[in-house]
Amino acid sequence: MIERIAILGTGLLGTSAGLALRAAGFTGYIAGWNRTSDQADLALQMGALSEVALDPIQAARESQVVLLAMPIFATLDFMAQLSNALTPDHLVTDVGSTKRTIAEAAAKLYNAPSRPAFLPGHPMAGKERGGASLGDAHLFRGAVWLFTDDPHARRTPQAAALIESWRHWVVNIGARTLDLDPARHDELVAWVSHLPQFVSTALSALLEEEVGDAPELKDVGGRALREMTRLGASPYSMWRDIAHTNTEAVAQALHALEQRLAHLRENLRTPALRTEFEEANRFRRE
Amino acid sequence: MIERIAILGTGLLGTSAGLALRAAGFTGYIAGWNRTSDQADLALQMGALSEVALDPIQAARESQVVLLAMPIFATLDFMAQLSNALTPDHLVTDVGSTKRTIAEAAAKLYNAPSRPAFLPGHPMAGKERGGASLGDAHLFRGAVWLFTDDPHARRTPQAAALIESWRHWVVNIGARTLDLDPARHDELVAWVSHLPQFVSTALSALLEEEVGDAPELKDVGGRALREMTRLGASPYSMWRDIAHTNTEAVAQALHALEQRLAHLRENLRTPALRTEFEEANRFRRE
Repeated sequence: MIERIAILGTGLLGTSAGLALRAAGFTGYIAGWNRTSDQADLALQMGALSEVALDPIQAARESQVVLLAMPIFATLDFMAQLSNALTPDHLVTDVGSTKRTIAEAAAKLYNAPSRPAFLPGHPMAGKERGGASLGDAHLFRGAVWLFTDDPHARRTPQAAALIESWRHWVVNIGARTLDLDPARHDELVAWVSHLPQFVSTALSALLEEEVGDAPELKDVGGRALREMTRLGASPYSMWRDIAHTNTEAVAQALHALEQRLAHLRENLRTPALRTEFEEANRFRRE
Repeated sequence: MIERIAILGTGLLGTSAGLALRAAGFTGYIAGWNRTSDQADLALQMGALSEVALDPIQAARESQVVLLAMPIFATLDFMAQLSNALTPDHLVTDVGSTKRTIAEAAAKLYNAPSRPAFLPGHPMAGKERGGASLGDAHLFRGAVWLFTDDPHARRTPQAAALIESWRHWVVNIGARTLDLDPARHDELVAWVSHLPQFVSTALSALLEEEVGDAPELKDVGGRALREMTRLGASPYSMWRDIAHTNTEAVAQALHALEQRLAHLRENLRTPALRTEFEEANRFRRE
């Protein structure tokens, strides 16, 4: 049903989406555009795209589905531009890591009778470094792809069909879909995604101060240290937008962890330490 | 030069040491003993041992090198027993995760002219779950094996030769050795090993409280969450001894991280967040 897709933003996620669609048998046209054209050229060479588009708005107009694969504030900018440039039969979807701000913008700018359709999406997949060169057709295999689907988006038969078709392609590329409302989405990912990231960033920054000048000492930590600090390589450019659009939920999660660490610290020699380990063991039971 | 080894404690580390020695070409005798004999029987079946010993003290007497591979307080108990049972030509070594307490016990009970030799050791390798069944001949490959070597241990030519020989076998099984003094050892591992463990425990325990009753929500976190909570499966039984014997350094590291998390939380919308990400990125630079 979907025959023409425009991927705006051909970094890690956009390029991986193009590669995954191709690997899953999508034979339609994929136009790609990126703010810095070298990333789009690379995505084209890797086989993620049919062509590199010069004008993102024009490429969106000529497609049925537009995938916005860029940081949140850039997504919001494009949402505003595209809401005036597209028809009610166009579907725009995204991969942004917070959904309340985007769902609010969608409610204002999309999904009215005269406006294009918008489906907020969030694949729980990524790497600690970005860029088209790390694009991977298998990135979404086994991952959860969250949606905060708004029934108002289905106000034309064409838009309703595109939404169903896009959801099918998401399953075809190996992801499992899960529907949440936007506020619940942002609260949940604050715990299971944003908190782990900010903890890894804080731990890595602290250890850089403590042992950063002695690389041989980093090696001492072995696999456990490497894993716990892997996300420390994540770029500020992406996480700034998340911190700005999910501040309250992230702050609450961080504060809860600060208190939990203090409790553990105060009980290093008491039986309460056993309780903490047992509770942690339960989270990891198989 | 070493021809007879006794491994007391045939859990993950003891069994892996036996398997690694065999894989590296050690053809001597390896007696093994474990508090619960099923673990020793399993280590024997896996090829880590030449025999299961019934009496650990007798097995130690009949060996040249005794490897204590058990939690710290159990190690201290055996150190006391063996210091009276062995000759000045015996070498005892261990794998305990903190070294100050053990080095203090060694200074009292070992390394005098009439006492056996003791070499405190600490391989930076492990898994989040223990037991002989997870024993792995490759566990120490690429890992750092720390020593807090005391020159007093080399007071007989035989003991000096056994120390050199054991250090060679540690290299032969794929580890790199690094020598530290015991206080510096405990301070360093508080940062690069104990802090990551306790953070993962606190994060896992917190998330068990928040989303533990909804397993589908754990999946949402994907690889990042799995990695950040893997160590949450670690057993209290092992970490209790570490918390008891490195309390001050661990508490200091935990407190520093609490402050760092609070700083990050208070700056989710300020440019200081960039500084934290950049510092973290430096720790993970390649």
